[in-house]
Amino acid sequence: MAIRTVVWGENIHEQTNKIVAEIYPEGMHTTIAKALNADTAISATTATLQEAEHGLPQLRLDETDVLLWWGHKDHGAVDNEIVERVAKRVWEGMGLIVLHSGHFSKIFKRLMGTPCALKWREAGERERLWVVNPGHPIAQGLGDNFVIEYEEMYGEHFSVPEPLETVFISWFQGGEVFRSGMTWRRGAGNIFYFRPGHETYPTYHQAPVHKVLQNAVKWAYNPMPTYKAVHDAPNVPVDKALEPITERGPRLHQAGEAGYR
Amino acid sequence: MAIRTVVWGENIHEQTNKIVAEIYPEGMHTTIAKALNADTAISATTATLQEAEHGLPQLRLDETDVLLWWGHKDHGAVDNEIVERVAKRVWEGMGLIVLHSGHFSKIFKRLMGTPCALKWREAGERERLWVVNPGHPIAQGLGDNFVIEYEEMYGEHFSVPEPLETVFISWFQGGEVFRSGMTWRRGAGNIFYFRPGHETYPTYHQAPVHKVLQNAVKWAYNPMPTYKAVHDAPNVPVDKALEPITERGPRLHQAGEAGYR
Amino acid sequence: MAIRTVVWGENIHEQTNKIVAEIYPEGMHTTIAKALNADTAISATTATLQEAEHGLPQLRLDETDVLLWWGHKDHGAVDNEIVERVAKRVWEGMGLIVLHSGHFSKIFKRLMGTPCALKWREAGERERLWVVNPGHPIAQGLGDNFVIEYEEMYGEHFSVPEPLETVFISWFQGGEVFRSGMTWRRGAGNIFYFRPGHETYPTYHQAPVHKVLQNAVKWAYNPMPTYKAVHDAPNVPVDKALEPITERGPRLHQAGEAGYR
Amino acid sequence: MAIRTVVWGENIHEQTNKIVAEIYPEGMHTTIAKALNADTAISATTATLQEAEHGLPQLRLDETDVLLWWGHKDHGAVDNEIVERVAKRVWEGMGLIVLHSGHFSKIFKRLMGTPCALKWREAGERERLWVVNPGHPIAQGLGDNFVIEYEEMYGEHFSVPEPLETVFISWFQGGEVFRSGMTWRRGAGNIFYFRPGHETYPTYHQAPVHKVLQNAVKWAYNPMPTYKAVHDAPNVPVDKALEPITERGPRLHQAGEAGYR
Repeated sequence: MAIRTVVWGENIHEQTNKIVAEIYPEGMHTTIAKALNADTAISATTATLQEAEHGLPQLRLDETDVLLWWGHKDHGAVDNEIVERVAKRVWEGMGLIVLHSGHFSKIFKRLMGTPCALKWREAGERERLWVVNPGHPIAQGLGDNFVIEYEEMYGEHFSVPEPLETVFISWFQGGEVFRSGMTWRRGAGNIFYFRPGHETYPTYHQAPVHKVLQNAVKWAYNPMPTYKAVHDAPNVPVDKALEPITERGPRLHQAGEAGYR
Repeated sequence: MAIRTVVWGENIHEQTNKIVAEIYPEGMHTTIAKALNADTAISATTATLQEAEHGLPQLRLDETDVLLWWGHKDHGAVDNEIVERVAKRVWEGMGLIVLHSGHFSKIFKRLMGTPCALKWREAGERERLWVVNPGHPIAQGLGDNFVIEYEEMYGEHFSVPEPLETVFISWFQGGEVFRSGMTWRRGAGNIFYFRPGHETYPTYHQAPVHKVLQNAVKWAYNPMPTYKAVHDAPNVPVDKALEPITERGPRLHQAGEAGYR
Repeated sequence: MAIRTVVWGENIHEQTNKIVAEIYPEGMHTTIAKALNADTAISATTATLQEAEHGLPQLRLDETDVLLWWGHKDHGAVDNEIVERVAKRVWEGMGLIVLHSGHFSKIFKRLMGTPCALKWREAGERERLWVVNPGHPIAQGLGDNFVIEYEEMYGEHFSVPEPLETVFISWFQGGEVFRSGMTWRRGAGNIFYFRPGHETYPTYHQAPVHKVLQNAVKWAYNPMPTYKAVHDAPNVPVDKALEPITERGPRLHQAGEAGYR
Repeated sequence: MAIRTVVWGENIHEQTNKIVAEIYPEGMHTTIAKALNADTAISATTATLQEAEHGLPQLRLDETDVLLWWGHKDHGAVDNEIVERVAKRVWEGMGLIVLHSGHFSKIFKRLMGTPCALKWREAGERERLWVVNPGHPIAQGLGDNFVIEYEEMYGEHFSVPEPLETVFISWFQGGEVFRSGMTWRRGAGNIFYFRPGHETYPTYHQAPVHKVLQNAVKWAYNPMPTYKAVHDAPNVPVDKALEPITERGPRLHQAGEAGYR
């Protein structure tokens, strides 16, 4: 069975900016989904901000293995309820791949617990991505570096938590560096951030970028059963203790009462 | 100069529950602050839920090096604006020590980005805390383990992000284990979670617990200047690039325009 | 294609100790290999200390995806050259699963760079392993804990480097805890340490232990091409620099000369 | 009391290469020690390869809080016994700062358990070091980046274990990047690798480099008592178990017998 993947696109600049519309006439999300579908292990569809529930109703999320997220112009337009819904699915085991300007998306900031801020410059400069973790599955088939000739610069410090592993680091023509590929696990959900993808450049038409995204979907996919218990705070009654114990001292809660939240 | 420390207490059960009031007649926060003040390197005061702005106005937080947080009965009563204010100060470099049932506090969940859920049992059972990272400053002077004779059980899985380092692991009489001391860094802020401290037991009157908290305050203290830039997403103009580059290709933003958030 | 797995056994106590011989009449390595072969994704064979080159000639290692290592009585008898050979294969991408008393094996200490010491007690006591990372593939299908009724105790502090992820923590009847499942990556090689497996108890005949080992082999397997470059320190000549630069200042090395090692 | 620091220098090129001798007439180790002694919190002396026991007899190491290591031309000349002696002191709590070409020193490879290989180019090119962890004490007072105008290039992949934290990343004029400041803990010992410092350039005469090294010594210093138990594998007899247990089943060891190593 192919990995059920949804590419979420904000889909604003494709509709309002002539340059972006020319590069991505079907929308960036569609271009990305096509690139993923070139890998038979992946079955990708799209969702956009403008759809009902931003295209992410609970039933659809429940049947999504990996979600990719691209947003930029209007992060604030994403409904908080949908953000919480996505966060819950990540904790339960859905993979999440956050792209480029998605660093400031509500869902990424929600899962990182930090500002996720960075330096930037929009000058169409050369970006070279170096593989710093060649054993990592997301680096498969990429050689030791690859170039994106025209890109926006993102520079450190990128205020995210120390990652589980750093996979890529970018060199920029103007003198900056950036940790361009990083992984985290939150609950049972694998999270990958991938830096490139400014909408005024044809980044998502390039082969190494396709390869990274295909690798990332396969890495982020967690085949284990949904981890619903991640939300639970179950009481273990004294008479169900694994080792026999006798209750001692005072207590706040009556037997069977739920804990405070 | 002593480390300016604030012990935040929810201060509800001390007022409403006879058992808790007897163990902590001045409130748990006061007992903890006294224990910290026994170390001359620390200067601790208290703040409570009931005070204006929960005792944490911006000016006070700006002059706080380390904040300890104990809450249980009414996490929901903490104002969201105060939570964001505290989170900002942590990213800027204020240390945060979260105690026991504070695992479900808004501020801890906000900074972890996960549910922070766990198993529990209120049976006054024996807890033994093992030092698993004897080189860590928070373990200083504790030997290889110490016992709290009467405690609430917390059991894994504790749904928090993989820590920077695991310092303590608890053994419980009823058969469970728990990662009782863990560290994270978020922005410039050092965060420590310490498990023991159920309000119906005299945990905060015990010497090894005092030692842990004193150690933790000293570890969490970041003497560096406030890291205000953690929130910023500055544009680096092309003519200010560190290496000379020439602008190429189209762009979204006008010179001097702020980025989207 | 099944994962080519080799189970290495020291095979001494099976030959010299009646109790061990009765529990593992074919040797512990054979019992483990059979358990692995029950999973069709795995193809396991065995190797022992007594064979030529300890059963690990270069050609065999080159065709091994994952190696399991059990040793106890005579770690010193393992040839240093074979240890280096195995270490090299791990860095190049071979998975390594170190079992129980293998914590003091030359290969584990070599790859960890630490003493790998711990407390112990041989009393046939109850061990309960808790899953602390339910999203991790090695925890698949195990529930939240499982019991080994008779085991040797290993207690913290276990002097290994902070792991990439802690998967299991053990509770012992006599009051200790231990991080019983931990992961590391070294070069392209995935490493997993799994605590249980004292030779005087039937641990490797138990279903949950089989499940852990099967999961671990699949997790440790790195399908990427052998990462030979992990050993290399290539010079990048000035005229092959990716960005044009001009040589400046003095240098130690002549063009084409190798670096010092 | 000042932090007792020893700067170890290989001291070969200073004696044999005219360029190096002119830049560092007293030896690189002396230049570095002087820079450290400019900070009153540090008391630095030197040791070299040519001295008896390479200047590192046990008694001196026992009174050393932090050791810095610079070597390049003849790593192989360092006695294996001294390497083990230093490793032991690191596990027991001595800090270690490894400089530049020390990446291939025996002691660094011993503690990392990996090849520690990298790309290189000797062209006097510009290196710019970016702070990626501004909350880290080693980054104190450095701004967001600093430049070393003439340096050797080191490029990824650098085959070391994933660090505890990445502090600096270097940008090179010729197109490469490198994780130039990384931390690890091994036992109770804090380890920091710092990239710059090729002997044909005046790197160790530069103010930001002095600042990094002073910060690093203070960070690496572990004031806790020597952690001798890191090497021990003590048996805990059944009658000394913290919780009462009864011995069951067979055992290998007689009471009081040491475990196998």
